[in-house]
Order: sequence, then structure tokens, then C-alpha cells
Amino acid sequence: MNPWEIEDSGISEESVIQNGNRMFCGNGFMGYRGTVDEADKSSMTGLIVNGIYDRQGDKWREPVNFPNPLFIQLSFEGQPLTLKSDSLNSHVQKLNFRYGIFSRKTLWNCNGAELTVESERFLSMSEKNILCLRYKITSNKDITLGIIQKIDEEVYDANGPHFKIEKKSDVGEGKCGEILMCRTLEKQLPFAVARISDFCSDTITLKAAVPQIITVYAAVFTNLDENNSPMAPVPVEQFASISVLQAEKAGWETLLQNHKKAWDKIWEDGDVVIEGDEEARLAQKNLRYSLYHLQSIAPRGRKALSIPARGLSAQTYKGAVFWDTELFIFPYFLYTQPELACEFIEYRIKTLEGAKRKAAAYGYEGAFYAWESQEDGDDACSDYNVTDVFTKRPVRTYFRDKQIHINAAIVYCICQYVEVTGDTLILQEGGLEVIFECAKFYISRCIYMPLKDRYEVHDVIGPDEYHERVNNNAYTNKMILFTLQKAVEFAEQQTETSPSPASHSFTKYIPLAKDICKKLYIPSPNAQGLIPQFDSYFDMEDCSLETVRSRLLDPKEYWGGANGVASHTQIIKQADTIVMLNLFDKDYDSAVLNANYDYYNPRTEHGSSLSACMYGMVACKTGRLKDAEEFYKKTSCVDISGNSKQWAGLIYIGGTHPAAQGGSWMMVVYGFCGFSIRENKIQIKQNLPAAWKKVSFTAMVGKEKYQVNVTREGYELCRK
Amino acid sequence: MNPWEIEDSGISEESVIQNGNRMFCGNGFMGYRGTVDEADKSSMTGLIVNGIYDRQGDKWREPVNFPNPLFIQLSFEGQPLTLKSDSLNSHVQKLNFRYGIFSRKTLWNCNGAELTVESERFLSMSEKNILCLRYKITSNKDITLGIIQKIDEEVYDANGPHFKIEKKSDVGEGKCGEILMCRTLEKQLPFAVARISDFCSDTITLKAAVPQIITVYAAVFTNLDENNSPMAPVPVEQFASISVLQAEKAGWETLLQNHKKAWDKIWEDGDVVIEGDEEARLAQKNLRYSLYHLQSIAPRGRKALSIPARGLSAQTYKGAVFWDTELFIFPYFLYTQPELACEFIEYRIKTLEGAKRKAAAYGYEGAFYAWESQEDGDDACSDYNVTDVFTKRPVRTYFRDKQIHINAAIVYCICQYVEVTGDTLILQEGGLEVIFECAKFYISRCIYMPLKDRYEVHDVIGPDEYHERVNNNAYTNKMILFTLQKAVEFAEQQTETSPSPASHSFTKYIPLAKDICKKLYIPSPNAQGLIPQFDSYFDMEDCSLETVRSRLLDPKEYWGGANGVASHTQIIKQADTIVMLNLFDKDYDSAVLNANYDYYNPRTEHGSSLSACMYGMVACKTGRLKDAEEFYKKTSCVDISGNSKQWAGLIYIGGTHPAAQGGSWMMVVYGFCGFSIRENKIQIKQNLPAAWKKVSFTAMVGKEKYQVNVTREGYELCRK
Repeated sequence: MNPWEIEDSGISEESVIQNGNRMFCGNGFMGYRGTVDEADKSSMTGLIVNGIYDRQGDKWREPVNFPNPLFIQLSFEGQPLTLKSDSLNSHVQKLNFRYGIFSRKTLWNCNGAELTVESERFLSMSEKNILCLRYKITSNKDITLGIIQKIDEEVYDANGPHFKIEKKSDVGEGKCGEILMCRTLEKQLPFAVARISDFCSDTITLKAAVPQIITVYAAVFTNLDENNSPMAPVPVEQFASISVLQAEKAGWETLLQNHKKAWDKIWEDGDVVIEGDEEARLAQKNLRYSLYHLQSIAPRGRKALSIPARGLSAQTYKGAVFWDTELFIFPYFLYTQPELACEFIEYRIKTLEGAKRKAAAYGYEGAFYAWESQEDGDDACSDYNVTDVFTKRPVRTYFRDKQIHINAAIVYCICQYVEVTGDTLILQEGGLEVIFECAKFYISRCIYMPLKDRYEVHDVIGPDEYHERVNNNAYTNKMILFTLQKAVEFAEQQTETSPSPASHSFTKYIPLAKDICKKLYIPSPNAQGLIPQFDSYFDMEDCSLETVRSRLLDPKEYWGGANGVASHTQIIKQADTIVMLNLFDKDYDSAVLNANYDYYNPRTEHGSSLSACMYGMVACKTGRLKDAEEFYKKTSCVDISGNSKQWAGLIYIGGTHPAAQGGSWMMVVYGFCGFSIRENKIQIKQNLPAAWKKVSFTAMVGKEKYQVNVTREGYELCRK
Repeated sequence: MNPWEIEDSGISEESVIQNGNRMFCGNGFMGYRGTVDEADKSSMTGLIVNGIYDRQGDKWREPVNFPNPLFIQLSFEGQPLTLKSDSLNSHVQKLNFRYGIFSRKTLWNCNGAELTVESERFLSMSEKNILCLRYKITSNKDITLGIIQKIDEEVYDANGPHFKIEKKSDVGEGKCGEILMCRTLEKQLPFAVARISDFCSDTITLKAAVPQIITVYAAVFTNLDENNSPMAPVPVEQFASISVLQAEKAGWETLLQNHKKAWDKIWEDGDVVIEGDEEARLAQKNLRYSLYHLQSIAPRGRKALSIPARGLSAQTYKGAVFWDTELFIFPYFLYTQPELACEFIEYRIKTLEGAKRKAAAYGYEGAFYAWESQEDGDDACSDYNVTDVFTKRPVRTYFRDKQIHINAAIVYCICQYVEVTGDTLILQEGGLEVIFECAKFYISRCIYMPLKDRYEVHDVIGPDEYHERVNNNAYTNKMILFTLQKAVEFAEQQTETSPSPASHSFTKYIPLAKDICKKLYIPSPNAQGLIPQFDSYFDMEDCSLETVRSRLLDPKEYWGGANGVASHTQIIKQADTIVMLNLFDKDYDSAVLNANYDYYNPRTEHGSSLSACMYGMVACKTGRLKDAEEFYKKTSCVDISGNSKQWAGLIYIGGTHPAAQGGSWMMVVYGFCGFSIRENKIQIKQNLPAAWKKVSFTAMVGKEKYQVNVTREGYELCRK
């Protein structure tokens, strides 16, 4: 089997939904779920364009699911042929993740005739607005079929509908196809979806063994330019029309070749090669599959966009950007495509105003970034994020209000970018302002305890969301300290050199920021080397994960919130103190890493796909190779296996897991290869799994691009 | 009908339980529920001795229900005669609340014979360890009955059992009776219950119309002396034996006369006379009934005890002392029996160590008084106080952790005591230490917000328990300010005059305390004159009480906690900001009182019996006489009507309501009579209901005792 390929023949509802995620295709401008050609909204088909959101009434804002231009439905004797048809003989679908090509082969028995449909689809990596489909029908007997081809406007929505159709028109030049002119409901954003097919009839008469091939070209356009500004009143449909006609002219083969070339280019620096035996080959496959997903959703074609927590795979989590981008996804791009990594920062710069609005709304200064960020930076996270399984009532959660560590993740990311690329331009272009505004927020959020003569941070939620409204979360406090230290450092540099308006606005905060840096309470290791995740954490019930699980009365119960089964125990959702020890490992000796790993790991549900890689990296750093390999499997298999958590309370949280994919890269590069930058130099402390012979990857540091080859014995750095 | 009497003929289970509360008798040392002679634990009989608690396993600590020495059960042809018997003809039971005499008259039809049982019972107000019962049986035909008389050791317990019986012995002197020597389980506290009856047989043969009278004397002793210290190993049973024999010798009539004399003495200063028409007579009755209850449970016979929130009527609320005592019950005693009021303070002084332990356990300095205080001042309030009706799981509540206003209520009470009585001895005898330790706690609890240059108080629960973990509760902040101001004032006085060890320990806190006094954030009225109950209160959903009620899925649902139907609305449980306006009315102009009354009243469930009197007093102060009369009815009828809230979630919260009883006195004296002390002088601003002609009451101020007579036209003060 092709090492760059996965396949599945599942046809159950569950399989269809999972394959929608697993066999997702994307080109960064848009994403298309891995459903079959005849799938409709009941199979959760999806065509998501990055950064386009809409709100229906007072429901959650979420990505707009665009009309599906690749819909083809065959029928025999009036009965549609689907994966649910009694006449289905066999079905297999595949994803080639070297090139993002989805294919399927399905056989039906039509009254004795064996009918085969084979199709291939890709979202062009060279022409970001274009989707292509080749659809081949063969029968072993003469047969006549019905066929419907259309832009399917009946789309799946979690909280829709999100658009109205303003006009349907011909695609032009006498071609067989159509253009749908639509407008979103909330912002009245115009968009167009066009399709051309080289087959026009609504019936097909097949001769035995003579295939009929249908090629479909589609184009998707919004009226946002690459800077996300609405364009002058140019008819969007005109773009769509021109574009889809050009595609049709270029033809399938050319488009496919260009598409593949673009992917080849991506893999030049984006690939990580793992050599070794069978196990290594599996690790390799899982890693490449992860990197494929990251590349499919990395924003392309428009500027200052980021990566939502479920990529472009679904409307899950409102299509919002979380800290996942900065702490889990960013590193891969930072070292392989820093220009893309920079877009993530540009996105935060662009949304700073939203973050300022949020801070002000809560009565704080500066900027408080959205926990769930959409195109304007206003928080898409609602006050009620979970539904109680017993009462069906919404449950007040505090993710939006209290997960203030989001700010620091952004600052950390900017500082990483500057440190690794040496590019300080981003600071002048808004990066500094982000840092200062984030710092101002923290300054107004820190409280001073006069009798203890120290600052504390109360009423927060750390990464472990099962424990809400805690005081002095170690991770949060440490990240706040980092933020304030960096803000002071940059402000003082700026003041000395060329004061910017941003640094000017921060000047008056410097003395207080310095005092907080000196006196902020950072929970330190106790006699056993253990750092309490937050105040009184060790006083809570210390019971096993199994005990907590056994208390569930309903498998869909939410574990956290005020009264969840985990809330008043030491059982945590995901890496929390361990994230801190990962980011700041230099500040702690290995005994502390060891102790906290041993304590927290059995108490962690790993109920978030963000957890495994963090534990895995500490497992590498502390020489726990066996554990590390398990965590690597976990983080790299979340999507390829499809075995991810599908529910949080009664809310569907399925989709792809870019953070776990980024975590796969981090585990290989940071973890097993022990890659780090110390004083602008690459350091390698490799600790490869037994089955691995060699890992090779690209790392750009400063202006240099390196090929890094790590073996069990040593490593080499080659300029690329 | 006797204006000092209530009666009821209910025999349903609900009536039996309610009458247990309504017709409660007590003498301050102990209390006995208003159940009939033959009632057993299924009718929730109760004999509670103030200040005696026990814990069973890890269940809640609660008062010990003592064995019942007044049990008499008749039977006819082997069938017990009870209120549930088919043979029951009629039943009526009464409470004379002038003298605390319970009586009953019950008729059964025993195979054609009409059998009448009449009994009377009192807990001697002159001999605090003695209970007396006179039991009269009459039949209109000759009849033979079985009779069981015993100390019923099978007691009702919410979370028992709480004692073991160590020995049963004769009462001595050849008398018919017994002594039970018992020991509580947790603290191994010995106690004895003795009984003598003048009727010895287990059958009674009655001649037609010739009554048989049985007199029973009982004694209850613990080994605690009046200072609550365990006595030297004197056999407690000996006390009980001597005491019950003495009682028997004295005889029913003498004991009854002495008991009545003691009550007459109590009423000399304890009564409040309302004159007027029928409505006034009803108000009078309700008030006297309230005062009766307060007097029945005011601690007598042992020192430094206080009044639990449900008196001695049941094990409800763990028999614990809340802020009810200081803010609702204390004023009545302060002006009528200051020596009793002083005991409440002594109780807080005695339990200071427990409060210090609690503060330390939470990481604070000073003393943090128990939200639910028992004999040692450790907090009986558990972390889980409510049971979820849907899951039957305990719900984490924060009453214990966050209701820090309890400290200030104690300080306020001490200051009131000193101000009104002029007695400063209590300050030197521990009162000052209480004030300083309470202040230290607040100092360590206040946080400083550097950018705002002010102190705030976060994460508290105010009187309105439906909103947990709020910031800057106006009532709490104002009370903290009061506490710190008083602490500083006393500390500076002390330092100038005769520095005590208590004030010495506070000296180093003075500068910070002063700074907090200067800069503590006290939410002030907005443009509409409204004071937000806490930060962002006005941002919460503003819906009606009916709307909130309509959202209940189960009538026993708890409204508060993290996810209650009221929690995220402006609907509050009870007076909160209104308590503040009551205590500090001098600091606010009448427009503010008016505005807040009008705003908060319709948003208040009045789900606590502490609410009505506070609104009622503000209604008086703002001239809303009609409202005030309604609130007076509410607060004064809670127990006489029996219409009180019986459930909080799945927890039974029935019993008597001393705070509402104290609230009745406050509404009459503070409210309708407008009584207050300004600069050591009595002020009266009367505002009597139309039906009332005159109110007369006693008020001791300084060393003087006044008879205060208030009419619609004016008032007079006479030295008594």
C-alpha cells in the first residue's frame, strides 16, 4: 500500500462522519470534508472557507458551510444509489495525503448489472479557489441511469442557516453548469459558487464495460480581498465565472499537475523523514498524515488568518482559533515556513481591537484575547458552553471569562518568532502593541496581597478546564511573569532606541510591571518536588481516574464545571503544570520534571487532544522513552485513527485536531530529537525510539535553512 | 380563646411534624418538640439540650436527640392507641405560650367505651433540668388498658445514632422509674436521663367517669458544668437521681407555680404590648408567640451558649449558630435582658480558637468564624450542603468558604452591646480579641488593585446565598469597613490607655487597616440611586420571580449554587443590599433607600425567613406602611402558621425560626416604633399601623431601664 495513503470501507453513519474528518482535503483557502460525491447534509458534507463566519439569531457564530458544487447523484430506476442502498456491493474510499487527493470506488448491483463508480477530487493547491472532480462510471452490462449534478445548496449546519441565495445563473460560454450568488445573513457578505461539468444530460446510457467519465470544475469566491477587506463592488460571480471557465480550459491533467507541484514544493521543507523498521514506518506515516492536515489548513490566499481548533473540517468549536495555534501548531510552521507562522501573528495583530473590547467589557485595561476567536477578535465563546445531560439546560462555564492564559500564549509565540527568525519587523508592525496590551491586561488582573507582600492571580482557569475559577494556577502565573518580563524588556529597549507609540503607551506601566515581575507568586516545588497546579490543589480528593469515571451517571456527562465528577478531585483534563514545565524546563531541575510527571500523569484524563504531546515531550526530557512512544502514538493517531472524543456534554466536538498534529511534529523534533535553540544555536539531545534509525527535517533559524539529520548516535546540520 | 394560646387538631404526618415545631416547649437548657405523649421517633419526637453535639461516622455533626423520658403509650386489647388508630375520635393539642405549657386532649373509641386522655407538660423554667408531665385518663365505661411508660431510647436522628446506653438503673428510694446512663459517641460525653412516675403498673383498670391521673417527673443531666467544662468524675446519674427525686417531692403544683413565676418574671421586661383593634390583637399574639420562642431557647443554666438557627426544635442545620443570632435575635435581648445578650458574645469569645483554626486552614490570618458554629467554633458547615435533585449527588456550595460577612456580624453585635449597655468589661474579657482577630482576617482577605489604587474583596457570598463567589458584595464590603474602623478605633484607644495583649497583637496591623479603611471600595449608588449587590449584578438577566420559578423542573430544586435557576439572574434569595441599608441608614439618603427597596424587593424570593423583617424595616423607614404590615405578618407568622420553607434541595430545613422571631421584635420596635439610639439617647420616630393604638416595651440603655410607650401621636419614656 502507498505509504502516503489511508483507506476505509466503512459505511455506517459513524464511519461516514469520521471519514469526513479523516479524509478531509484542503488548500488553506478552503476545506472539503471526506464525504462521497452523492453525500448530502445528512452525511455532514462540508465546504468551509477560512475566516468566513455567520450568526443565525442568537445562536453561536460559526463558519459558513458553503453550497457544495461537487454533488453528483446517480439513480437506477428512480432509486438513488448511495452508501445506504440495498444494492450496494462494496465501497472503499481513500485519501492520498501526499497530494490531498480523495478517491472512492463503489460498486452497486443494479438489477444484475454491476455498476462501478470511481472518483477523484482535489482542492487545488496552486489555484486556491478551484476544486476539481473526476467521476467515472462503468457497468458490466448495458444500463441507463439517472444523474443529478448540482451545486447542492442544502448544506449541513450546526446552527444555521447562514446564507441566502440571491441569484442562480448560467456559467457562461454555453457551458454546462451554474453559478450561485449568495450572501451571508449577518454581515451580508457576498460569495459565489460556480461549477462546470463536461456532462450535461440527466440520464446516462452506459454500454457494458465502456466507462463514462465526467469532469467537474468548481470555483468559490468571496468578496474579501487578500487582506480580508471587502472588495469594491466587483461582481463576485464574475470572478467565479472567469475562474471556473479558466479551470475548465486548463483541464484536469494540467490542474492536477500544478496541484501536485505545489504540494511537492510544500514537502521540500515541510516533510520530516523517519527511517527505521516497521514501527518507524508507522510513525512516519502518522507524522506525515499530521503534517498533511496542517498544510491543508494553513491559511493561504488571504492574509492574517490563523488556524481554527478543528481546522476547516467542520463547524465544531465555532470554527474558532484557540491557544492551540500559538502553542501547538505554530512551532512546525515557525521552523519550516516562517512566513506562514507570521500570518498567525498577523491574525492576532488584526484582532487586537476585539481583544481590547473584551478587556474593557470585563473592566480591565489592555487587551484580553478571545478564548474562541473569529474574524474580528470578539469572543465567540459563550457563557454557556456545555449542556447538562440531566436537565438539558445550558451550564454556565467560565472558559471565556477566566482562561486568561490565552494572552500569554500569543506573547510567547511572538517572542519565539522573533527569537528564531531574527525578524523584528513584526514587532514594529503591531507585535509590540499586542505584547504591551496583553501585559496591561495582566497588570490590571494581578492583585496585590499586602500582608504577603506579593502579587497573586485569582479566579482563573488553566489549561485543565475541569477546574474552574482557581487561584494561582502555576502555568498561568508563570506565563504572566513571562509576558510582563518581555513587555518590560521590549519597552525599555524601545525607549532607549526608537520609541514607538505602542511603547509610549506602556511607559507609565513599567514601574508596576517591574514590581509585579519581582513579586508575582509563582508556586514552587514542595518538598517532594511537586508544584501545585493551583492553590489547594493537593487538598482535593485524590482518587483514581477509574473512580471518577465510575461515578458518571451518563457517559456524555461533562466532567468539569461547577459540579462535574472531576471538579472536586485531583483528576485533571489535560496537561497543565506539565505545559509549564515543558515551556520553562530550563527553570526547573530534572527531579522536578520527574516528580511532577509521575504525579500528574496518572491523574490526567488526557481528555483533550492537547495533552498527549505535552506529556510526551516531558517523557522524552526525562528519559521515559516507552511512555513517550505511547504519547506519540496518541497525538499522531488522533485523526488517522478517528478515535477522538466526540462529545463534551451534549455538544458535538468532532472534527480534525490540528493541535495534536502540531504536537506530533513537536514530539518528533522537540521530543525524540531533543531539538532546541539556545543562544541562537541549534541544540540536539536526541533520544530516538529503538525502532527509529534516523530523523531528517528542515529547520530555519535566523536567515539560514538547515537540513537536520538525527541518528541514534549523533546528528548533522546541513545548510539547505 | 386565650390570647396566649394556639391549638391544632391536625393528625396528618405533616401536621404532626409542624406541630412538633409550633408547640415546642423549652427552658433554654433544653427543648422538647410539641408531639403527643405516645409519639415515637416516627413522629420526630425531640429532646435537645443546648450545646450538645455528636457526629456519626463522616456524617454531619448535629445536636444529640436525648432519650425521651415522657413517653406514655396506652393500649386497648393489645392495640396501641395513637393518633393513627382507627379508634381515634378526636384530637386537639394546645400550646400556652405565656407559660410554655403543652397540652393535649384526645378521645378514642375503645369498643364502645369513650376514652379521653388529657395531658399537660412543661420544661421547668425554674429548675432547668426538670420536665414534668401530668397525664389524665378517663373512660365513660369501665375498661382495662395496657400502659407503657418508659424513657424511650429509640430516638429520631437525622444523622444518628449519637449515644450508647451504658447502664439502666432504678431511680432510688423505691420509686417507680429508671435512670439511663448514656454516653455520646464522638466525645464520649456522659449524660443521664431519669424519670419517676406515680403510677407503676402496666395495666390500668378504669371505672366509668373516674379519672386516673399519672404524674411524671424527669431530669436530664450532662457532665458539663455551667461553664461547659466536664465536671470531675461525679456520677451524672447521681445528679439526675437526686434531682428527679426532689422534683417528685416538690410535686406538680409547686413545680408548676415556680415555673409560672419564672415566666412571669421573664415577661416583666420581655413582653411587648400592642394595643388596638382586632388586627392589633392578632399582631400582638404573633409577636408574643415569637418572643415566647426566643425566651424558650435563650441559653440558660450554662454559660457562653448561643441560639442555633432553628433553636432547640430539631437537628436541622446541624443545631448550628449562624449570623442569625447577632443580627436578628440579639437586639431583643440586648434591650430586655442584656445579660443574656452578653452570653451570645461570650459564646463567640469561647469559640474564637475554632475561628482561628478555620482562618488558618484557609490560609488567612486572624479568625474566620464558622458559618455554622457548634460548641467548639469549628465549622459544621460542609463543603456540600445541597443535594442535586436530578443526580442525587451532593452539590459543592461555598457557604462555609465564602460567607465571610459572619465575622462582621459578630463585631457589629459586640459594638452594639458596648454602645447600648455602656458595659466595656466584655471588651477586656475577650471581646476586643474577637474584634481584632476578625479584623486581621479581613485585612488578609482584602486585596489591593494597584491600577485602581483601591482595595477590593473578591470571591464572597453575601446574605443572598443564590449568588456564590461574587466580587465586592456591597453588604460585605461595608461591614468589613465597619469592622476595620472599629478595630482601629479600639486599638488606638487601647494603646493610649491600657494596652492589652489583644491590642498589642493588632498594633502592627493598624497602618494597613487604616489604609484599607481609606481605600476600600464600597459600591456607591448609581445615577438611579441603585447600589449593585455585587460587581456586574445589573448585567445579569433581569427577569421576574415568576419566570425563574417557571424554569424549575422539580419543585425541590435548589435555586442557587453554580447552576440554579436564580444563579445567573437578578433574582435573589433574601435581603442583601437592604440589610446594609438597614444597618447603615444614616449613611444614605432616603432616595437611595427608596430606589433600592423598589428595585430589590420584586427581585427577592424572600426564600429565607431572614428576609421579610429587613425589607419590613426599610418599608417603615421609607413610609411604606402597607408593605411593612405585610412583611410584619410574614416574619411574625413563620412559626405560628407553620408555613415555612421545608426544603432546600433535598435537605429538610424545617424547625422554628428564631431569626424571624427576633425580626418580629425588630419590626415592631425598630420599624413601627422607629426606636433607635443616637448619641446614647433613645429616639422614637413612630409609624404605627392604623389598627394599632399603642405599643409598650422595655428598653434598657446604659444602666437605665425604660418603659417605652408609643402611640400614634407621640411617645413617653418612663424609668422602670
